[in-house]
Order: sequence, then C-alpha cells, then structure tokens
Amino acid sequence: MGENATDLYHRPHYPLLIVISGPSGVGKDSVVTQMRQRQSSFHFVITATSRPPRPDEVHGTDYFFVSETEFQEMIRQDELLEHAMVYGQYKGIPKQQVRDALNSGKDVIMRLDVQGAATVKRLAPEAILIFLAAASEEELYARLQRRQTESEEQLRYRMRVAREEMRRIGEFDYVVINRECGLDETVEQVLHIIDAEHCRVQQRHVTL
Amino acid sequence: MGENATDLYHRPHYPLLIVISGPSGVGKDSVVTQMRQRQSSFHFVITATSRPPRPDEVHGTDYFFVSETEFQEMIRQDELLEHAMVYGQYKGIPKQQVRDALNSGKDVIMRLDVQGAATVKRLAPEAILIFLAAASEEELYARLQRRQTESEEQLRYRMRVAREEMRRIGEFDYVVINRECGLDETVEQVLHIIDAEHCRVQQRHVTL
Repeated sequence: MGENATDLYHRPHYPLLIVISGPSGVGKDSVVTQMRQRQSSFHFVITATSRPPRPDEVHGTDYFFVSETEFQEMIRQDELLEHAMVYGQYKGIPKQQVRDALNSGKDVIMRLDVQGAATVKRLAPEAILIFLAAASEEELYARLQRRQTESEEQLRYRMRVAREEMRRIGEFDYVVINRECGLDETVEQVLHIIDAEHCRVQQRHVTL
Repeated sequence: MGENATDLYHRPHYPLLIVISGPSGVGKDSVVTQMRQRQSSFHFVITATSRPPRPDEVHGTDYFFVSETEFQEMIRQDELLEHAMVYGQYKGIPKQQVRDALNSGKDVIMRLDVQGAATVKRLAPEAILIFLAAASEEELYARLQRRQTESEEQLRYRMRVAREEMRRIGEFDYVVINRECGLDETVEQVLHIIDAEHCRVQQRHVTL
C-alpha cells in the first residue's frame, strides 16, 4: 500500500484553536455559553485577571485570579497568548493552559475582542477566527441599548468602534451572523465550521 | 458607515459547486441520494450520456439521453465541464446546466470519480472537492465484494485503482470517512462543510 493511502486511513487528529470574536454587544458570551452546554468535548479557555473576584465567581472556573505582580511576571515571562489592560486591570490568556488542552486532544475555544483575536492569529496563524456579526447596525444598537449599562454617548462610541472592527473582517476566516432570536442557528453554524475544519485535507496544526 | 462594514451587512450570496468524489465502492451514490432526500435547496447535476435509457430511466431526471453524434458535437463546442468514455459510451456534465443552476442561486452538487473531480477543479478552481474514503482497506473491499458484480480479479484491480486515487487526496479540499453503518454521519459532515463554506470570509465565487 502506498504511503499516502496509509496516511489517509490513519490521519492524525489535530485539535483546533477557535476564536469567537466580534464587536461588543454582538452576543459572544451567549454563543460560548450555549456551546459549553451542548458540547463537553471542547476546552473553554479560562482568562487570567488581576481584578478581585466578585462574590459569585470561582477561581479556576470563571477566571484565574492573580495579583497584579503575578500578572506582570506572566507578561515578562511571555506566558500569555494575549493580554490587555481593561479599566485599569489586566486580563489575558495563559499559553500553558491552551498548550495543555491542545496536547490532551481537545479543541480550544476562546472568546476575544477583535484586537485580541488579531493578536492570537499573529502568534498562531493556524487558529480559526470566527467573526460574529449582528444582522444590521440597528440590531447591534438595539442589543447594546437593552443592556442599559451605557449612556447615549457611550453607545455611539461603541457603534463607532464596531464599524472599525468590521473593517478588519479580512483578518478573519469565517463570519457568522448572530440574528435576533437566532442564537441556536448561530451556535449550529459555529459547530458546523469546527466539524468542517476537522475534515480539511490540509489540516491546521496549531503550535504555540 | 464605512464601505466594508456595509459589505458585511449585505454580503453577496455565492452559490457553491460541490464535487462528491472518492474510489469506486465507497458510497458516493448513497451519500448523494440521501443529500437529495434531506435538502431540496441544492441542484443535483444530471449527467448527459450517449447510452440508451434503461426501461425505468427518465430523460431529464436520471440522465440526459443524447445520441453519440449529439454528444460529440457537445465536446466540439466545449459545452461539457467534464466528460469520459465509459464502456464505449459517453457521459459528461453539460456546462450550461451548472451555469443555470448557479445563476439561480442554488448550490450545485455533482458526483464524480477522482479523475473527473480533478478535471473540474482545473476548470473551476473555486469548486469544493470532497473526497469520500472508507474507514479502512478492508471496509472498501467488503463493500465492493457485497455488490457481487465483479470477479476476484476485477476486485483486486478496483483496490489497486482506489489506492492510486487516494494518493491524489492533496488535490481535494476535504476528506470525509464514510463508515459502515455511518451514512447519516457522513451526510451530516458533508452538509456541515457546505454550511461552513458559506460562512467563509473569502467566499468562493465559481465562474464557468
């Protein structure tokens, strides 16, 4: 039997690194939460943060809570796949966690803003970047408005940022429209993308 | 609003050209038949042939039955996407049929042997080639044997051809393992691939 034919019957399984991204308010959290409920075979990345835990938050489940000094040490040691300072507090993704999950054969799912997604793609070009988009500007605005956490001025700022983020679509692999009342369909499409990627002849082999 | 952002909210829909291929005996017909039962939104290509219709076959449903002269004229006029002489009779795929289906917005599904799939990819590089593979040499052999249409010598020849065809996997986009008793799963994976391809940021725009 030829070498290639043998390979086809015994293809290696390369776990995938999947980034769910998109503008603020588009529904990234809901999508990832529902993926977690439907598919237990993924590893969902736990973010490290220097902010103190809220009463209901559990270390190692919701976040890895570390001190600011510890976080800065992780940055110095290049132990973070991606990190950012948000409202004066650090958050980031420990590389080792992702490596361990991939080594165990699990597909890794991470939720990141557009800037963070682009950073991951630079470090791991084999990562699969999925851009969640609203069906229209109006839907995105309505979603942000429903949160009732922001002033009119802040909403306008978010919309400007969203438009800029959408111009970076070329850095992404896939775009999935997250319609109002269409969360199930959105999650299906994301799962189909992951399934299809596992069938690619040219498999993506992530190394970190 | 920026141009790109507008584009993202109003993405054009490009129908896909999907080729289901793989070695003889792997189950291409069963997969395509079940796709037809489950998804009416596709156009399933009808092959043109110069062989006479069998009693139960309907012109325009099972095949387009044309005379040998008509077929040769189609070849001369470059009206065929792909054609072959099989057991002394012509069969081939009329380009116009594929063009019309794509223009109507339908994804086009065609079943082709490995050689034919490669020909289509050369003419339409944006075509999506799916290679159906058995789970093992043993399963493929058992499948061919169950047909009871071929001598032991013919079976061995088919297996040799299958091995050679599997070496051409690099010309394909996806590989789906069609396991014994796993037809439903195979069809699901093919449908997921099609769904995922529609979500690609860099859409494939087929022109013929």
